Amino acid sequence: MGRAEKASLTGKICKGKDMANGMKIDKSSNVSKCPVEIAGAEGVEVRWLISKDDGAENFAMRMFELAEGGHTPLHTHPHEHEVFIVEGEGLFVCEGLEHPFAAEHFILVPGGKEHRFKNTGESILRFLCVIPADAG
Amino acid sequence: MGRAEKASLTGKICKGKDMANGMKIDKSSNVSKCPVEIAGAEGVEVRWLISKDDGAENFAMRMFELAEGGHTPLHTHPHEHEVFIVEGEGLFVCEGLEHPFAAEHFILVPGGKEHRFKNTGESILRFLCVIPADAG
Repeated sequence: MGRAEKASLTGKICKGKDMANGMKIDKSSNVSKCPVEIAGAEGVEVRWLISKDDGAENFAMRMFELAEGGHTPLHTHPHEHEVFIVEGEGLFVCEGLEHPFAAEHFILVPGGKEHRFKNTGESILRFLCVIPADAG
Repeated sequence: MGRAEKASLTGKICKGKDMANGMKIDKSSNVSKCPVEIAGAEGVEVRWLISKDDGAENFAMRMFELAEGGHTPLHTHPHEHEVFIVEGEGLFVCEGLEHPFAAEHFILVPGGKEHRFKNTGESILRFLCVIPADAG
């Protein structure tokens, strides 16, 4: 019996998803990942952890995974990104300036600023990126 | 010279915050934490990483830290939470059902459902929690 089960107060322990209550709980690596194939992206994959399809009305949470040397395209959009670095290290390029980051850093990418993420480490770079639900 | 600096293409490397561009980048542990003192909370602290004060119009990102045995209050609100477990293990209680979780799990907490987070591990529990900007 795991520690979580021993700590149960009600005995009503669930495992995995419970969409009956409209909630969703899972390990991020269980969500399938897709390659990002837009121009300017290299070695980028994404897992959509939470989105409008799950009933999240306001914003969506994605996990990006960049292979060694990988980068997102240099791009701009009107909405903000909110990013948290889970693993690895890299450079955040914003309006021509480069900002080094590592695990446990967070980044607010304001709307309308040209930016890119680049993996400069020797292993995978993984980061969460939250966007408004309708931003696509 | 660090790897990030060696990898610089433009030489325009910045360190720490760059509020001039409206962006914000920092290590989460550099953001001061405050105790959560509302009724039903025990051993809970929060760091507001990104909020409306930083110019984030749509949503806010907070890092919650629960001491061993700590828990958030059993509470309900109309908006969704989006959560990512950074460190530790615990139980997510939602509408009376208990869902064990550990690092790298994500949770969509739908609006209007009574819920609580509880640290059931033997060390700190840390998780990101994203809410709409106006949810407070």
